Amino acid sequence: MSPNKNDAVAPIGVFDSGMGGLTVLRALHERLPGEDIIYFGDTARVPYGTKGEKTVRAFASQDAGLLVELGVKMVVVACNTASAFALEHLRETMPVPILGVINPGVRTALAMTRGGPVGVIGTSGTIRSGRYQEGLAAGGLGEDRILVQECPLFVPLVEEGLMGHAMTVMAIEEYLLPLRDAGVDTLILGCTHYPALKDDIGRFMGPDVKLVDSADALALAAQDRLTELALLRGDTSREGKLEFYLSDIPWKFQEIGARFLGKPIEEVITVGLDEMEAFSDSND
Amino acid sequence: MSPNKNDAVAPIGVFDSGMGGLTVLRALHERLPGEDIIYFGDTARVPYGTKGEKTVRAFASQDAGLLVELGVKMVVVACNTASAFALEHLRETMPVPILGVINPGVRTALAMTRGGPVGVIGTSGTIRSGRYQEGLAAGGLGEDRILVQECPLFVPLVEEGLMGHAMTVMAIEEYLLPLRDAGVDTLILGCTHYPALKDDIGRFMGPDVKLVDSADALALAAQDRLTELALLRGDTSREGKLEFYLSDIPWKFQEIGARFLGKPIEEVITVGLDEMEAFSDSND
Repeated sequence: MSPNKNDAVAPIGVFDSGMGGLTVLRALHERLPGEDIIYFGDTARVPYGTKGEKTVRAFASQDAGLLVELGVKMVVVACNTASAFALEHLRETMPVPILGVINPGVRTALAMTRGGPVGVIGTSGTIRSGRYQEGLAAGGLGEDRILVQECPLFVPLVEEGLMGHAMTVMAIEEYLLPLRDAGVDTLILGCTHYPALKDDIGRFMGPDVKLVDSADALALAAQDRLTELALLRGDTSREGKLEFYLSDIPWKFQEIGARFLGKPIEEVITVGLDEMEAFSDSND
Repeated sequence: MSPNKNDAVAPIGVFDSGMGGLTVLRALHERLPGEDIIYFGDTARVPYGTKGEKTVRAFASQDAGLLVELGVKMVVVACNTASAFALEHLRETMPVPILGVINPGVRTALAMTRGGPVGVIGTSGTIRSGRYQEGLAAGGLGEDRILVQECPLFVPLVEEGLMGHAMTVMAIEEYLLPLRDAGVDTLILGCTHYPALKDDIGRFMGPDVKLVDSADALALAAQDRLTELALLRGDTSREGKLEFYLSDIPWKFQEIGARFLGKPIEEVITVGLDEMEAFSDSND
Protein backbone atom coordinates (compact mmCIF):
# COMPACT_ATOMS: atom_id res chain seq x y z
CA MET A 1 0.00 0.00 0.00
CA SER A 2 1.40 3.39 -0.89
CA PRO A 3 1.32 6.26 1.58
CA ASN A 4 -1.40 8.77 0.73
CA LYS A 5 -1.29 10.79 3.86
CA ASN A 6 -3.15 13.89 2.83
CA ASP A 7 -5.80 12.09 0.92
CA ALA A 8 -9.39 11.88 2.20
CA VAL A 9 -9.79 8.37 0.79
CA ALA A 10 -6.86 7.06 2.87
CA PRO A 11 -7.74 4.98 5.93
CA ILE A 12 -7.68 6.16 9.54
CA GLY A 13 -5.12 4.37 11.72
CA VAL A 14 -5.84 3.32 15.30
CA PHE A 15 -3.37 1.68 17.66
CA ASP A 16 -3.55 0.32 21.15
CA SER A 17 -1.36 -1.76 23.44
CA GLY A 18 -3.65 -4.71 22.77
CA MET A 19 -7.27 -5.54 22.11
CA GLY A 20 -8.90 -2.91 24.36
CA GLY A 21 -8.63 -0.24 21.66
CA LEU A 22 -11.19 -2.15 19.61
CA THR A 23 -13.78 -0.21 21.64
CA VAL A 24 -12.36 2.92 19.99
CA LEU A 25 -12.42 1.32 16.55
CA ARG A 26 -16.04 0.38 17.15
CA ALA A 27 -17.01 3.92 18.20
CA LEU A 28 -15.13 5.38 15.21
CA HIS A 29 -16.78 2.96 12.80
CA GLU A 30 -20.23 3.76 14.20
CA ARG A 31 -19.64 7.48 13.90
CA LEU A 32 -17.86 7.38 10.53
CA PRO A 33 -19.18 4.23 8.83
CA GLY A 34 -17.82 5.19 5.41
CA GLU A 35 -14.19 5.47 6.56
CA ASP A 36 -11.68 2.64 6.13
CA ILE A 37 -9.88 1.97 9.39
CA ILE A 38 -6.67 0.06 10.08
CA TYR A 39 -6.26 -1.21 13.64
CA PHE A 40 -2.95 -2.26 15.17
CA GLY A 41 -2.87 -3.97 18.57
CA ASP A 42 0.56 -4.58 20.13
CA THR A 43 -0.57 -7.85 21.66
CA ALA A 44 3.00 -9.20 21.84
CA ARG A 45 4.01 -6.50 24.31
CA VAL A 46 0.73 -5.69 26.05
CA PRO A 47 0.20 -4.23 28.66
CA TYR A 48 1.74 -0.74 28.48
CA GLY A 49 0.10 0.54 31.67
CA THR A 50 2.60 -1.01 34.06
CA LYS A 51 5.69 -0.06 32.07
CA GLY A 52 8.07 2.88 32.08
CA GLU A 53 7.79 6.09 30.07
CA LYS A 54 10.76 5.46 27.79
CA THR A 55 9.64 1.94 26.92
CA VAL A 56 6.08 3.05 26.16
CA ARG A 57 7.37 5.88 23.98
CA ALA A 58 9.54 3.49 21.99
CA PHE A 59 6.61 1.09 21.51
CA ALA A 60 4.25 3.91 20.50
CA SER A 61 6.73 5.19 17.88
CA GLN A 62 6.84 1.78 16.27
CA ASP A 63 3.06 1.37 16.41
CA ALA A 64 2.43 4.76 14.78
CA GLY A 65 5.28 4.17 12.32
CA LEU A 66 3.65 0.97 11.10
CA LEU A 67 0.32 2.74 10.52
CA VAL A 68 1.99 5.60 8.65
CA GLU A 69 3.80 3.06 6.49
CA LEU A 70 0.39 1.52 5.72
CA GLY A 71 -0.71 4.90 4.37
CA VAL A 72 -3.11 6.25 7.00
CA LYS A 73 -4.24 9.88 6.95
CA MET A 74 -4.40 10.18 10.75
CA VAL A 75 -3.21 8.15 13.73
CA VAL A 76 -5.61 7.75 16.64
CA VAL A 77 -3.85 6.68 19.84
CA ALA A 78 -6.51 4.58 21.58
CA CYS A 79 -4.22 3.60 24.45
CA ASN A 80 -4.35 5.97 27.41
CA THR A 81 -0.85 5.10 28.60
CA ALA A 82 0.63 5.74 25.14
CA SER A 83 -1.35 8.99 24.94
CA ALA A 84 0.02 10.00 28.32
CA PHE A 85 3.66 9.25 27.54
CA ALA A 86 4.12 9.57 23.80
CA LEU A 87 1.67 12.03 22.25
CA GLU A 88 4.00 15.02 21.95
CA HIS A 89 6.80 12.82 20.72
CA LEU A 90 4.57 11.33 18.00
CA ARG A 91 3.40 14.80 16.95
CA GLU A 92 7.01 15.86 16.52
CA THR A 93 8.06 12.81 14.55
CA MET A 94 5.08 11.59 12.49
CA PRO A 95 3.99 13.14 9.17
CA VAL A 96 0.24 12.82 9.86
CA PRO A 97 -2.11 14.30 12.49
CA ILE A 98 -1.98 12.45 15.82
CA LEU A 99 -5.03 12.26 18.06
CA GLY A 100 -4.78 11.12 21.68
CA VAL A 101 -7.46 9.86 24.01
CA ILE A 102 -6.79 12.08 27.01
CA ASN A 103 -7.86 15.54 25.82
CA PRO A 104 -11.20 14.36 24.38
CA GLY A 105 -11.96 12.62 27.69
CA VAL A 106 -10.99 15.72 29.66
CA ARG A 107 -13.17 17.98 27.51
CA THR A 108 -16.17 15.67 27.86
CA ALA A 109 -15.75 15.50 31.63
CA LEU A 110 -15.46 19.29 31.92
CA ALA A 111 -18.69 19.63 29.94
CA MET A 112 -20.49 17.07 32.11
CA THR A 113 -19.49 17.97 35.64
CA ARG A 114 -22.05 19.89 37.69
CA GLY A 115 -19.70 21.46 40.19
CA GLY A 116 -18.62 18.36 42.07
CA PRO A 117 -15.24 16.68 41.93
CA VAL A 118 -14.22 14.80 38.79
CA GLY A 119 -12.70 11.35 39.20
CA VAL A 120 -10.17 9.74 36.85
CA ILE A 121 -9.39 6.03 36.88
CA GLY A 122 -6.65 4.43 34.79
CA THR A 123 -3.52 2.29 34.72
CA SER A 124 -0.57 3.11 36.95
CA GLY A 125 1.26 4.67 34.00
CA THR A 126 -1.64 6.88 32.98
CA ILE A 127 -2.38 8.15 36.47
CA ARG A 128 1.27 8.69 37.38
CA SER A 129 1.93 10.60 34.17
CA GLY A 130 -0.33 13.34 35.57
CA ARG A 131 -1.74 14.17 32.12
CA TYR A 132 -5.42 13.90 33.04
CA GLN A 133 -4.76 15.97 36.15
CA GLU A 134 -3.00 18.65 34.05
CA GLY A 135 -5.81 18.70 31.50
CA LEU A 136 -8.54 19.07 34.12
CA ALA A 137 -6.57 21.79 35.90
CA ALA A 138 -6.03 23.65 32.63
CA GLY A 139 -9.79 23.45 32.13
CA GLY A 140 -10.32 25.34 35.36
CA LEU A 141 -10.79 22.63 37.99
CA GLY A 142 -9.11 23.29 41.33
CA GLU A 143 -6.98 20.63 42.94
CA ASP A 144 -9.77 19.71 45.35
CA ARG A 145 -12.02 18.83 42.41
CA ILE A 146 -9.59 16.36 40.80
CA LEU A 147 -9.48 12.85 42.25
CA VAL A 148 -7.46 10.05 40.66
CA GLN A 149 -7.16 6.33 41.27
CA GLU A 150 -4.96 3.62 39.74
CA CYS A 151 -6.96 0.43 39.09
CA PRO A 152 -4.33 -2.12 38.02
CA LEU A 153 -6.58 -5.18 38.40
CA PHE A 154 -9.32 -3.93 36.06
CA VAL A 155 -7.41 -4.87 32.89
CA PRO A 156 -6.83 -8.52 33.84
CA LEU A 157 -10.39 -8.82 35.16
CA VAL A 158 -11.76 -7.60 31.83
CA GLU A 159 -9.34 -9.77 29.84
CA GLU A 160 -10.66 -12.75 31.78
CA GLY A 161 -14.22 -11.75 30.96
CA LEU A 162 -15.17 -11.38 34.63
CA MET A 163 -17.70 -8.59 34.13
CA GLY A 164 -20.32 -8.81 36.89
CA HIS A 165 -18.26 -11.37 38.82
CA ALA A 166 -17.90 -11.11 42.61
CA MET A 167 -14.15 -10.48 42.23
CA THR A 168 -14.83 -7.56 39.93
CA VAL A 169 -17.42 -6.15 42.31
CA MET A 170 -14.87 -6.42 45.11
CA ALA A 171 -12.14 -4.71 43.08
CA ILE A 172 -14.51 -1.90 42.14
CA GLU A 173 -15.43 -1.36 45.76
CA GLU A 174 -11.79 -1.37 46.79
CA TYR A 175 -10.68 1.15 44.17
CA LEU A 176 -13.74 3.38 43.85
CA LEU A 177 -15.04 3.75 47.39
CA PRO A 178 -12.87 6.81 48.09
CA LEU A 179 -14.13 8.46 44.89
CA ARG A 180 -17.76 7.68 45.72
CA ASP A 181 -17.31 8.90 49.29
CA ALA A 182 -15.83 12.14 47.97
CA GLY A 183 -18.95 12.67 45.89
CA VAL A 184 -17.49 12.77 42.38
CA ASP A 185 -20.24 13.65 39.89
CA THR A 186 -18.24 12.61 36.81
CA LEU A 187 -15.85 9.70 36.38
CA ILE A 188 -13.43 9.40 33.45
CA LEU A 189 -12.87 5.76 32.42
CA GLY A 190 -9.25 6.46 31.53
CA CYS A 191 -8.34 3.10 29.96
CA THR A 192 -9.71 1.41 26.85
CA HIS A 193 -10.57 -1.70 28.85
CA TYR A 194 -12.78 0.04 31.38
CA PRO A 195 -15.89 0.63 29.25
CA ALA A 196 -16.41 -3.15 29.52
CA LEU A 197 -16.98 -2.54 33.25
CA LYS A 198 -19.43 0.33 32.70
CA ASP A 199 -22.42 -1.54 34.13
CA ASP A 200 -20.55 -2.76 37.20
CA ILE A 201 -18.98 0.64 37.85
CA GLY A 202 -22.30 2.41 37.24
CA ARG A 203 -24.09 0.17 39.73
CA PHE A 204 -21.48 0.95 42.38
CA MET A 205 -21.20 4.69 41.76
CA GLY A 206 -24.94 5.22 41.42
CA PRO A 207 -27.08 6.71 38.64
CA ASP A 208 -26.10 10.33 39.36
CA VAL A 209 -22.45 9.84 38.49
CA LYS A 210 -21.72 10.41 34.79
CA LEU A 211 -19.25 7.95 33.29
CA VAL A 212 -17.02 9.32 30.52
CA ASP A 213 -16.26 6.60 27.97
CA SER A 214 -13.16 7.80 26.18
CA ALA A 215 -14.01 5.79 23.05
CA ASP A 216 -17.03 7.95 22.23
CA ALA A 217 -15.21 11.17 23.07
CA LEU A 218 -12.27 10.14 20.90
CA ALA A 219 -14.46 9.20 17.92
CA LEU A 220 -16.15 12.58 18.08
CA ALA A 221 -12.79 14.34 18.28
CA ALA A 222 -11.55 12.39 15.27
CA GLN A 223 -14.59 13.44 13.26
CA ASP A 224 -14.08 17.10 14.23
CA ARG A 225 -10.41 17.00 13.39
CA LEU A 226 -10.89 15.30 10.01
CA THR A 227 -13.60 17.82 9.15
CA GLU A 228 -11.27 20.69 10.10
CA LEU A 229 -8.52 19.26 7.91
CA ALA A 230 -10.91 18.51 5.03
CA LEU A 231 -9.88 14.85 5.27
CA LEU A 232 -13.32 13.30 5.74
CA ARG A 233 -14.46 10.99 2.96
CA GLY A 234 -17.24 12.42 0.86
CA ASP A 235 -18.93 9.16 -0.06
CA THR A 236 -20.53 8.36 3.29
CA SER A 237 -22.94 5.79 1.92
CA ARG A 238 -20.20 3.19 1.41
CA GLU A 239 -19.37 0.62 4.10
CA GLY A 240 -15.84 1.31 5.30
CA LYS A 241 -13.33 -1.55 5.34
CA LEU A 242 -11.80 -2.58 8.68
CA GLU A 243 -8.33 -4.15 8.74
CA PHE A 244 -6.68 -5.74 11.76
CA TYR A 245 -2.96 -6.05 12.50
CA LEU A 246 -1.64 -7.65 15.70
CA SER A 247 1.89 -8.41 16.90
CA ASP A 248 0.74 -11.68 18.52
CA ILE A 249 -2.36 -13.83 18.23
CA PRO A 250 -3.32 -14.28 21.87
CA TRP A 251 -5.21 -17.12 23.47
CA LYS A 252 -8.95 -16.46 23.44
CA PHE A 253 -8.29 -14.00 20.65
CA GLN A 254 -11.69 -14.43 18.96
CA GLU A 255 -13.53 -14.23 22.27
CA ILE A 256 -11.70 -11.12 23.51
CA GLY A 257 -11.96 -9.47 20.10
CA ALA A 258 -15.71 -9.96 19.93
CA ARG A 259 -16.05 -8.65 23.50
CA PHE A 260 -14.51 -5.30 22.56
CA LEU A 261 -15.54 -4.97 18.94
CA GLY A 262 -19.08 -6.26 19.35
CA LYS A 263 -18.65 -8.66 16.44
CA PRO A 264 -16.15 -11.33 15.38
CA ILE A 265 -12.88 -10.34 13.71
CA GLU A 266 -12.68 -12.25 10.47
CA GLU A 267 -9.09 -11.84 9.37
CA VAL A 268 -5.92 -10.68 11.09
CA ILE A 269 -2.47 -9.88 9.78
CA THR A 270 0.35 -10.70 12.19
CA VAL A 271 3.26 -8.26 12.35
CA GLY A 272 6.57 -9.70 13.55
CA LEU A 273 8.50 -7.80 16.20
CA ASP A 274 11.48 -7.60 13.87
CA GLU A 275 9.22 -5.67 11.49
CA MET A 276 8.08 -3.44 14.38
CA GLU A 277 11.69 -2.63 15.27
CA ALA A 278 12.16 -1.32 11.74
CA PHE A 279 9.74 1.50 12.56
CA SER A 280 11.80 2.70 15.52
CA ASP A 281 12.68 6.34 15.26
CA SER A 282 16.11 7.66 15.92
CA ASN A 283 15.16 9.35 19.18
CA ASP A 284 14.46 6.10 20.99
CA MET B 1 32.61 -9.31 29.07
CA SER B 2 34.08 -12.11 27.00
CA PRO B 3 32.25 -15.39 26.57
CA ASN B 4 33.76 -18.15 28.67
CA LYS B 5 31.13 -20.74 28.23
CA ASN B 6 32.89 -23.86 29.35
CA ASP B 7 34.58 -22.27 32.27
CA ALA B 8 33.55 -23.06 35.86
CA VAL B 9 34.25 -19.49 36.93
CA ALA B 10 31.74 -18.09 34.42
CA PRO B 11 28.41 -16.90 35.80
CA ILE B 12 25.11 -18.77 35.61
CA GLY B 13 22.43 -17.01 33.54
CA VAL B 14 18.78 -16.90 34.58
CA PHE B 15 15.98 -15.33 32.58
CA ASP B 16 12.30 -14.78 33.15
CA SER B 17 9.51 -12.83 31.51
CA GLY B 18 9.73 -10.32 34.34
CA MET B 19 10.50 -10.11 38.03
CA GLY B 20 8.93 -13.42 39.13
CA GLY B 21 12.07 -15.36 38.24
CA LEU B 22 13.88 -13.62 41.07
CA THR B 23 12.47 -16.41 43.27
CA VAL B 24 14.60 -18.78 41.17
CA LEU B 25 17.65 -16.54 41.46
CA ARG B 26 17.15 -16.49 45.21
CA ALA B 27 16.89 -20.29 45.45
CA LEU B 28 19.96 -20.68 43.21
CA HIS B 29 21.96 -18.20 45.26
CA GLU B 30 21.00 -19.93 48.50
CA ARG B 31 21.98 -23.33 47.15
CA LEU B 32 25.14 -22.18 45.32
CA PRO B 33 26.27 -19.07 47.23
CA GLY B 34 29.70 -19.00 45.58
CA GLU B 35 28.37 -18.79 42.03
CA ASP B 36 28.04 -15.51 40.15
CA ILE B 37 24.58 -15.18 38.63
CA ILE B 38 23.30 -12.84 35.90
CA TYR B 39 19.54 -12.29 35.87
CA PHE B 40 17.60 -10.96 32.91
CA GLY B 41 13.94 -10.01 33.30
CA ASP B 42 12.05 -9.07 30.13
CA THR B 43 9.98 -6.47 31.96
CA ALA B 44 9.26 -4.51 28.76
CA ARG B 45 7.32 -7.42 27.28
CA VAL B 46 6.00 -9.19 30.38
CA PRO B 47 3.80 -11.25 30.66
CA TYR B 48 4.56 -14.25 28.44
CA GLY B 49 1.81 -16.47 29.86
CA THR B 50 -1.02 -14.99 27.81
CA LYS B 51 0.89 -14.85 24.53
CA GLY B 52 1.29 -17.21 21.59
CA GLU B 53 3.91 -19.92 21.14
CA LYS B 54 5.80 -18.24 18.29
CA THR B 55 6.03 -14.92 20.12
CA VAL B 56 7.24 -16.53 23.33
CA ARG B 57 9.84 -18.54 21.41
CA ALA B 58 11.16 -15.39 19.72
CA PHE B 59 11.38 -13.57 23.07
CA ALA B 60 13.09 -16.54 24.75
CA SER B 61 15.70 -16.73 21.98
CA GLN B 62 16.61 -13.10 22.54
CA ASP B 63 16.67 -13.50 26.32
CA ALA B 64 18.97 -16.52 26.18
CA GLY B 65 21.05 -14.86 23.44
CA LEU B 66 21.73 -11.88 25.67
CA LEU B 67 22.88 -14.11 28.53
CA VAL B 68 25.15 -16.14 26.23
CA GLU B 69 26.63 -12.88 24.95
CA LEU B 70 27.33 -11.94 28.57
CA GLY B 71 29.40 -15.10 28.90
CA VAL B 72 27.27 -17.41 31.04
CA LYS B 73 28.13 -21.11 31.39
CA MET B 74 24.49 -22.24 31.59
CA VAL B 75 21.08 -20.66 30.95
CA VAL B 76 18.33 -21.35 33.48
CA VAL B 77 14.87 -20.66 32.08
CA ALA B 78 12.96 -19.54 35.17
CA CYS B 79 9.79 -18.75 33.23
CA ASN B 80 7.36 -21.66 32.97
CA THR B 81 5.77 -20.39 29.76
CA ALA B 82 9.17 -19.98 28.06
CA SER B 83 10.16 -23.43 29.31
CA ALA B 84 6.94 -24.85 27.87
CA PHE B 85 7.29 -23.25 24.44
CA ALA B 86 10.98 -22.68 23.81
CA LEU B 87 13.17 -25.19 25.63
CA GLU B 88 13.88 -27.53 22.72
CA HIS B 89 14.45 -24.61 20.41
CA LEU B 90 16.96 -23.07 22.82
CA ARG B 91 18.77 -26.40 23.20
CA GLU B 92 19.13 -26.62 19.44
CA THR B 93 20.38 -23.07 18.99
CA MET B 94 22.37 -22.07 22.10
CA PRO B 95 26.00 -23.06 22.72
CA VAL B 96 25.54 -23.64 26.48
CA PRO B 97 23.44 -26.08 28.54
CA ILE B 98 19.81 -24.97 28.92
CA LEU B 99 17.79 -25.86 32.01
CA GLY B 100 14.01 -25.47 32.12
CA VAL B 101 11.69 -25.30 35.08
CA ILE B 102 9.15 -27.91 34.04
CA ASN B 103 11.06 -31.17 34.33
CA PRO B 104 12.48 -30.41 37.79
CA GLY B 105 8.96 -29.59 38.99
CA VAL B 106 7.58 -32.78 37.47
CA ARG B 107 10.28 -34.93 39.08
CA THR B 108 9.71 -33.38 42.48
CA ALA B 109 5.95 -33.92 42.23
CA LEU B 110 6.40 -37.55 41.17
CA ALA B 111 8.64 -38.11 44.20
CA MET B 112 6.15 -36.45 46.57
CA THR B 113 2.79 -37.87 45.50
CA ARG B 114 1.35 -40.63 47.66
CA GLY B 115 -0.97 -42.19 45.13
CA GLY B 116 -3.49 -39.38 44.78
CA PRO B 117 -3.94 -37.08 41.82
CA VAL B 118 -1.29 -34.42 41.12
CA GLY B 119 -2.49 -30.89 40.36
CA VAL B 120 -0.69 -28.37 38.16
CA ILE B 121 -1.50 -24.67 38.15
CA GLY B 122 0.01 -22.16 35.75
CA THR B 123 -0.58 -19.49 33.13
CA SER B 124 -2.81 -20.16 30.13
CA GLY B 125 0.25 -20.67 27.94
CA THR B 126 1.90 -23.16 30.27
CA ILE B 127 -1.22 -25.25 30.85
CA ARG B 128 -2.26 -25.24 27.20
CA SER B 129 1.22 -26.26 26.06
CA GLY B 130 0.55 -29.63 27.73
CA ARG B 131 4.19 -29.97 28.83
CA TYR B 132 3.50 -30.63 32.51
CA GLN B 133 0.82 -33.15 31.53
CA GLU B 134 3.29 -34.93 29.19
CA GLY B 135 5.98 -34.99 31.86
CA LEU B 136 3.70 -36.44 34.53
CA ALA B 137 2.34 -39.01 32.08
CA ALA B 138 5.88 -40.01 31.07
CA GLY B 139 6.61 -40.45 34.77
CA GLY B 140 3.86 -43.06 35.00
CA LEU B 141 0.78 -41.08 36.09
CA GLY B 142 -2.47 -42.09 34.43
CA GLU B 143 -4.72 -39.45 32.95
CA ASP B 144 -7.08 -39.63 35.95
CA ARG B 145 -4.21 -38.64 38.23
CA ILE B 146 -3.30 -35.43 36.34
CA LEU B 147 -5.42 -32.34 36.99
CA VAL B 148 -4.56 -28.93 35.57
CA GLN B 149 -5.90 -25.44 36.06
CA GLU B 150 -5.11 -22.10 34.42
CA CYS B 151 -4.95 -19.30 37.03
CA PRO B 152 -4.61 -16.11 34.96
CA LEU B 153 -5.41 -13.71 37.81
CA PHE B 154 -2.68 -14.96 40.14
CA VAL B 155 0.11 -13.02 38.37
CA PRO B 156 -1.59 -9.60 38.58
CA LEU B 157 -2.68 -10.29 42.17
CA VAL B 158 0.92 -11.03 43.14
CA GLU B 159 2.27 -8.07 41.17
CA GLU B 160 -0.14 -5.88 43.13
CA GLY B 161 1.12 -7.37 46.39
CA LEU B 162 -2.31 -8.67 47.35
CA MET B 163 -1.09 -11.73 49.23
CA GLY B 164 -3.64 -12.62 51.94
CA HIS B 165 -6.19 -10.17 50.51
CA ALA B 166 -9.87 -11.13 50.22
CA MET B 167 -9.63 -10.91 46.41
CA THR B 168 -6.75 -13.37 46.39
CA VAL B 169 -8.62 -15.72 48.72
CA MET B 170 -11.61 -15.54 46.37
CA ALA B 171 -9.50 -16.23 43.27
CA ILE B 172 -7.83 -19.18 44.97
CA GLU B 173 -11.20 -20.65 45.89
CA GLU B 174 -12.48 -20.13 42.36
CA TYR B 175 -9.50 -21.78 40.67
CA LEU B 176 -8.51 -24.45 43.19
CA LEU B 177 -11.83 -25.80 44.50
CA PRO B 178 -12.07 -28.45 41.75
CA LEU B 179 -8.51 -29.61 42.55
CA ARG B 180 -9.22 -29.75 46.28
CA ASP B 181 -12.50 -31.58 45.70
CA ALA B 182 -10.69 -34.11 43.52
CA GLY B 183 -8.33 -34.82 46.41
CA VAL B 184 -4.97 -33.90 44.84
CA ASP B 185 -2.16 -34.77 47.26
CA THR B 186 0.50 -32.72 45.43
CA LEU B 187 0.17 -29.37 43.69
CA ILE B 188 2.80 -27.99 41.31
CA LEU B 189 3.06 -24.18 41.48
CA GLY B 190 3.80 -23.94 37.76
CA CYS B 191 4.60 -20.22 37.52
CA THR B 192 7.41 -18.23 39.11
CA HIS B 193 4.89 -15.85 40.66
CA TYR B 194 2.93 -18.47 42.54
CA PRO B 195 5.36 -19.20 45.39
CA ALA B 196 4.41 -15.73 46.68
CA LEU B 197 0.92 -17.21 47.25
CA LYS B 198 2.21 -20.32 49.03
CA ASP B 199 0.66 -19.42 52.38
CA ASP B 200 -2.73 -18.53 50.90
CA ILE B 201 -2.81 -21.62 48.69
CA GLY B 202 -1.62 -23.84 51.54
CA ARG B 203 -4.37 -22.57 53.83
CA PHE B 204 -7.00 -23.34 51.20
CA MET B 205 -5.68 -26.74 50.12
CA GLY B 206 -4.96 -27.91 53.68
CA PRO B 207 -1.80 -29.21 55.37
CA ASP B 208 -1.86 -32.62 53.68
CA VAL B 209 -1.38 -31.25 50.17
CA LYS B 210 2.29 -30.88 49.22
CA LEU B 211 3.10 -27.72 47.28
CA VAL B 212 5.91 -28.01 44.73
CA ASP B 213 7.81 -24.73 44.48
CA SER B 214 9.58 -24.89 41.14
CA ALA B 215 12.30 -22.50 42.27
CA ASP B 216 13.76 -24.99 44.76
CA ALA B 217 13.43 -27.88 42.34
CA LEU B 218 15.14 -25.88 39.61
CA ALA B 219 18.02 -24.77 41.85
CA LEU B 220 18.65 -28.39 42.80
CA ALA B 221 18.54 -29.45 39.15
CA ALA B 222 21.03 -26.69 38.25
CA GLN B 223 23.42 -27.89 40.95
CA ASP B 224 23.16 -31.49 39.71
CA ARG B 225 23.70 -30.50 36.11
CA LEU B 226 26.70 -28.26 36.85
CA THR B 227 28.23 -31.03 38.93
CA GLU B 228 27.73 -33.53 36.10
CA LEU B 229 29.38 -31.15 33.64
CA ALA B 230 32.21 -30.29 36.04
CA LEU B 231 31.17 -26.64 35.80
CA LEU B 232 30.65 -25.95 39.51
CA ARG B 233 33.00 -23.36 41.01
CA GLY B 234 35.54 -24.86 43.34
CA ASP B 235 35.93 -21.87 45.67
CA THR B 236 32.61 -22.14 47.51
CA SER B 237 33.62 -19.85 50.34
CA ARG B 238 33.39 -16.71 48.22
CA GLU B 239 30.19 -14.66 48.03
CA GLY B 240 28.88 -14.87 44.46
CA LYS B 241 28.10 -11.64 42.62
CA LEU B 242 24.53 -11.04 41.43
CA GLU B 243 23.91 -8.87 38.37
CA PHE B 244 20.52 -7.64 37.18
CA TYR B 245 19.46 -6.77 33.63
CA LEU B 246 15.93 -5.64 32.77
CA SER B 247 14.34 -4.45 29.52
CA ASP B 248 12.20 -1.88 31.38
CA ILE B 249 12.28 -0.38 34.85
CA PRO B 250 8.70 -0.90 35.99
CA TRP B 251 6.73 1.14 38.48
CA LYS B 252 7.16 -0.26 42.00
CA PHE B 253 10.31 -1.89 40.75
CA GLN B 254 12.13 -1.81 44.09
CA GLU B 255 9.08 -3.06 45.96
CA ILE B 256 8.35 -5.92 43.57
CA GLY B 257 12.03 -6.85 43.36
CA ALA B 258 12.36 -7.08 47.14
CA ARG B 259 9.18 -9.15 47.30
CA PHE B 260 10.63 -11.86 45.08
CA LEU B 261 14.31 -11.63 45.88
CA GLY B 262 13.90 -11.18 49.63
CA LYS B 263 16.25 -8.19 49.64
CA PRO B 264 16.56 -4.92 47.72
CA ILE B 265 18.15 -4.87 44.27
CA GLU B 266 20.93 -2.33 44.37
CA GLU B 267 21.84 -1.77 40.74
CA VAL B 268 20.13 -2.62 37.45
CA ILE B 269 21.34 -2.44 33.87
CA THR B 270 18.60 -1.59 31.36
CA VAL B 271 18.71 -3.38 28.01
CA GLY B 272 17.01 -1.59 25.11
CA LEU B 273 14.65 -3.58 22.91
CA ASP B 274 16.76 -2.70 19.88
CA GLU B 275 19.62 -4.48 21.62
CA MET B 276 17.33 -7.44 22.34
CA GLU B 277 16.35 -7.69 18.67
CA ALA B 278 20.02 -8.09 17.83
CA PHE B 279 19.95 -11.46 19.63
CA SER B 280 17.14 -12.83 17.47
CA ASP B 281 18.04 -16.08 15.83
CA SER B 282 17.42 -16.80 12.20
CA ASN B 283 14.63 -19.29 12.88
CA ASP B 284 12.26 -16.67 14.27
